[in-house]
Amino acid sequence: MDEKHKAQLKYYRESIDNIDASLVFMLAERFKITKAVGFYKREHDLPPADPSREQEQVARLRDLAKSAKLDPEFSEKFLNFIIREVIQHHERIREQGDLK
Amino acid sequence: MDEKHKAQLKYYRESIDNIDASLVFMLAERFKITKAVGFYKREHDLPPADPSREQEQVARLRDLAKSAKLDPEFSEKFLNFIIREVIQHHERIREQGDLK
Repeated sequence: MDEKHKAQLKYYRESIDNIDASLVFMLAERFKITKAVGFYKREHDLPPADPSREQEQVARLRDLAKSAKLDPEFSEKFLNFIIREVIQHHERIREQGDLK
Repeated sequence: MDEKHKAQLKYYRESIDNIDASLVFMLAERFKITKAVGFYKREHDLPPADPSREQEQVARLRDLAKSAKLDPEFSEKFLNFIIREVIQHHERIREQGDLK
């Protein structure tokens, strides 16, 4: 690969790397909050799942995805991927009383 | 559910919603760049995949996840999830010559 192409790919990749770092830190913050929700619900004996909240989130993300010109199907897959992880955290909170 | 609990959950959920909006817009920006990479590679007849780059990304994200106190396994699953989507975009770029 010639130097010009290498430099151009490097330019793109530095932006991708910056965005990935932002995504990781935003996700870490998101899980901090959902874990706090898990602990709060357990402490106050509240139901772990809330289907109406989840429906609202999906609808809201679809709208956001549209305005960001992101594939709405992808954004739904993405939310489901995150929610599966949150549910695992909440199950661990309930079963083990704490998170590793 | 009593009003105090409702208010507390609302407080948490507003933060989750803010973060989700950020994630959607960061992902949209990330896909803009990876699509540009796809077009650039096609235009200059460069190889579509780069295993050494992917290995570097996984290693880098593992380190970032550690410093963000995010589960490194989750961050790897997350990167793979994103990369699968990027590969689909790139395949569409190669096959259809454009993206819908």
